Amino acid sequence: MKNHKEGRSWIRNLPLQLSPPSLKDNTADVDRLIRGIKKGLEAEAVRIDFSLIKKATQTLRKYDYNVRAAVFQERNGWCLIDIFGAREGGGIYGLALDLGSSTLVLRLMNLEDGEVQDEVSFHNPQIEIGPDILTRIHFAAHEGGLSRLQDILIDRLNEEIGRLAEKNSINPKSIVGMSVAGNTTMTHLFLGLDPYWICREPYIPVVNSPGLITSYELGLTINPGAPVLVSPNVGSYFGGDLMAGILASGMTHQSEVSFLVDVGTNAEVVIGNRDWLMACAGAAGPALEGGVASMGMMAAPGVIDHVRIDPVTREFEIRTIQDDGSDKASQGQGPVGICGSGLIDLVAQLYLARMIDLRGKFVSDTCGDRLVEIDEIKHLIVVPPEASGTGQALTLSQTDIDGLIRSKAAMYTILTTIANTVNIPLKEIGRFYVAGTFGSYIDPQSAITIGMIPDLPIETYISLGNTSLEGASMALLSGGAKQALFQIRDRITYLELNVNQGFMNLFSAAKFIPHTDRSLFPSVKTRN
Amino acid sequence: MKNHKEGRSWIRNLPLQLSPPSLKDNTADVDRLIRGIKKGLEAEAVRIDFSLIKKATQTLRKYDYNVRAAVFQERNGWCLIDIFGAREGGGIYGLALDLGSSTLVLRLMNLEDGEVQDEVSFHNPQIEIGPDILTRIHFAAHEGGLSRLQDILIDRLNEEIGRLAEKNSINPKSIVGMSVAGNTTMTHLFLGLDPYWICREPYIPVVNSPGLITSYELGLTINPGAPVLVSPNVGSYFGGDLMAGILASGMTHQSEVSFLVDVGTNAEVVIGNRDWLMACAGAAGPALEGGVASMGMMAAPGVIDHVRIDPVTREFEIRTIQDDGSDKASQGQGPVGICGSGLIDLVAQLYLARMIDLRGKFVSDTCGDRLVEIDEIKHLIVVPPEASGTGQALTLSQTDIDGLIRSKAAMYTILTTIANTVNIPLKEIGRFYVAGTFGSYIDPQSAITIGMIPDLPIETYISLGNTSLEGASMALLSGGAKQALFQIRDRITYLELNVNQGFMNLFSAAKFIPHTDRSLFPSVKTRN
Repeated sequence: MKNHKEGRSWIRNLPLQLSPPSLKDNTADVDRLIRGIKKGLEAEAVRIDFSLIKKATQTLRKYDYNVRAAVFQERNGWCLIDIFGAREGGGIYGLALDLGSSTLVLRLMNLEDGEVQDEVSFHNPQIEIGPDILTRIHFAAHEGGLSRLQDILIDRLNEEIGRLAEKNSINPKSIVGMSVAGNTTMTHLFLGLDPYWICREPYIPVVNSPGLITSYELGLTINPGAPVLVSPNVGSYFGGDLMAGILASGMTHQSEVSFLVDVGTNAEVVIGNRDWLMACAGAAGPALEGGVASMGMMAAPGVIDHVRIDPVTREFEIRTIQDDGSDKASQGQGPVGICGSGLIDLVAQLYLARMIDLRGKFVSDTCGDRLVEIDEIKHLIVVPPEASGTGQALTLSQTDIDGLIRSKAAMYTILTTIANTVNIPLKEIGRFYVAGTFGSYIDPQSAITIGMIPDLPIETYISLGNTSLEGASMALLSGGAKQALFQIRDRITYLELNVNQGFMNLFSAAKFIPHTDRSLFPSVKTRN
Repeated sequence: MKNHKEGRSWIRNLPLQLSPPSLKDNTADVDRLIRGIKKGLEAEAVRIDFSLIKKATQTLRKYDYNVRAAVFQERNGWCLIDIFGAREGGGIYGLALDLGSSTLVLRLMNLEDGEVQDEVSFHNPQIEIGPDILTRIHFAAHEGGLSRLQDILIDRLNEEIGRLAEKNSINPKSIVGMSVAGNTTMTHLFLGLDPYWICREPYIPVVNSPGLITSYELGLTINPGAPVLVSPNVGSYFGGDLMAGILASGMTHQSEVSFLVDVGTNAEVVIGNRDWLMACAGAAGPALEGGVASMGMMAAPGVIDHVRIDPVTREFEIRTIQDDGSDKASQGQGPVGICGSGLIDLVAQLYLARMIDLRGKFVSDTCGDRLVEIDEIKHLIVVPPEASGTGQALTLSQTDIDGLIRSKAAMYTILTTIANTVNIPLKEIGRFYVAGTFGSYIDPQSAITIGMIPDLPIETYISLGNTSLEGASMALLSGGAKQALFQIRDRITYLELNVNQGFMNLFSAAKFIPHTDRSLFPSVKTRN
């Protein structure tokens, strides 16, 4: 964000000291304004929406032709967003939005210096209608359902926008641009477009590249002429959030080949460099997100995110996420559950302490008293009742481990399959970017240990955090980044994952810890 | 209009048989539509307004991707107007509008073969608020005045559009384009723009080139996505009607220099050829339109438009406009007044019959009994009470003649001044186009006789009729003509008429019949 160059902004604040009309220069007000903008931007074409024509002439005359124009660049020229009196002062601002299905992150940015002014995160209000995307798609098919979903989203955004503007003492009218990245369904619900066909073969969205939409068409209470940039999708399963993520990773600037992995409900995997890009998606998520394990939870305060087991004493050292977001050795209130990264840590440590074998099965000898049987299924007591925050023991069952192993095997198989398709040996991967909240908690060493990700030097793994928000911010600030977003979309090749015999063979081989072919994981071999 | 080439239309009807989506081709509906339009038109860029995105996908699915698109060309690509099912059938239509301050002429055209489908003419409903432009400008300044003026105009247009559509059995939604030519004030009132500064120094319109406006923004009940092309103005006194007139005249295609004169309340004069264009305007109108003479009237049934006086017997032969628009020797109901062309004929004939002298003064000897004195001013009885349609004598006063002579002198002076400015001797003018209703009635020979227009071969004078409507129609049908309209606007040089000593000297010399310098009017000299 720091290397943002003002000269490349596609939304600008242009001071205009126009010469007032005279008998010698009787150009009309609007044409005079256009002439001034053309000169100021060295632009060939400048467009003014009809709705702004009335206002433009009033403002010009009120401020004696001494004004400033907020403008944005479009395909072949520039377009007026709004016109202000020069004396009115004030800068121009923009919003970047990570439109998650669970959480929305709204960032207020100063469009002149590119700095982050403020940021707020809140739950997607559509959760009250349906916690997951599929429920919302079905709800949208009911009479009035689609507009209800859009309305509660826009209303909530407007509330937060109002609060952000007030807190930062800026007029919402000075918010003159917005950049939004979300998955394909969320993008459709934001735009009020029917997501019906997204989840039905052949999975066709209404639109891939909605282009720039003015904010008043969406009912947003920022400047009505503000362009809203919606990050484009490649299809139903490759959303604008992933395009933004690829942009944010910078992988398309590098000559070496990188992986970008975003693990949500689906695992989205991108491989490529500055010359080519290939992507695929597969269901690898739930177990990794902690959603499958009986004590699994979303990352939140009180949730276990790191585990260490002494290989000799087999004592457990458990860390939980604190209220301030840090993680510390559990003290005071005990842990209440485990998140995906904690689960990966736990299973890796159980393997290294030989408490599970290479098939992930509990080893009675080493588990000792911790192993109990509930409903004929073996469970490992991770936190005893007296130490837990719930008053109940936190346990990990054989079923939980089996689920995690299927998920990690799916992930490793997807990575192998896409790398094989482009004929790149996994060891030649230069960088492995992990996107998303999940990625920011995960310990790559543990993920390697269980064989979920390739056994690459640990510095290859780079956690990027919220790439959707970061990519949206970049596209808001820079015309080059905005253009790159659409180029990424157009360049990406979609790999349809055929679950054929070859895939199943790879998957079966990956269902061991770390893998049937241990030579693929030399670092795990040596440590064990 | 006959040489209209479909290939050059900027509004088109494009059949699109799109391949339905599949797992192999998962392009979204809207992007699929855009891809089809790009291919069909060999276009680089295609734009879809956000409001059409929802409809587009519904129509595509309803008609199994077998559709047709109405599209229009804009600066750097094409834009979707609407999408129809291929099975729905039907053509596409457009409207050309001559937006006169007194009379509106609305023409329905078939946009596929370029033929005129129907045409209707009616009074401007704003007349009930103010008969003249200035009254309307003042009315617009009152609270709600501007929107009232716009509303009654649009309402009336919508009525007529509905009637035209019904009469021609077409769906108003299939009217997908409109082209409007009017003077600068009328254009502003049509668009709901404040005309306040048009009549105040330095006479600045709100806008010169409004560009293409979609019909729903103006509240027109044709297809809401239809582009409305508004003919651009050069300033407050050179309206879009004149630009359309220049286009219709074809003078910008010729190497020889032409005049184009449009006499309304103002005389608008254009001189030029394919390489250059200069225009000026001056108050020469009222007397010529018949508005000054006591018996003067607008051209209408019962009004005298042609007069012949036998130079020997001095008998009057009077023709009036008939109900069917033709003119015949007066019979049955007598004449009720005289229009501008009749007045020019009358004064020319009085001069040739030596009933007025070269200063336009009545000659008692030759006028005889026809000359009476009313309120100490000499009047000539043109139609005695018993032959008139009003029961009163129709008379022409010395004041009327003096007024006409000032007007004709102003016209001739303007023509001389603008020709002098560009250094073109009047005798080198190849064609002299006369636009407007007034032009279609005028007898060039009589106008030459009184010295209003130069003494050129009679075939030099070409009456063009309603050039505003004709130009608007051309710009509706052809992309080249539309472009030419804006090129004319941009190329035209405005000549500010300085009423200085030089102008006054020319004016004084022109206040004789035909002129002080009789060598300028050799044809009049020989006949007299």
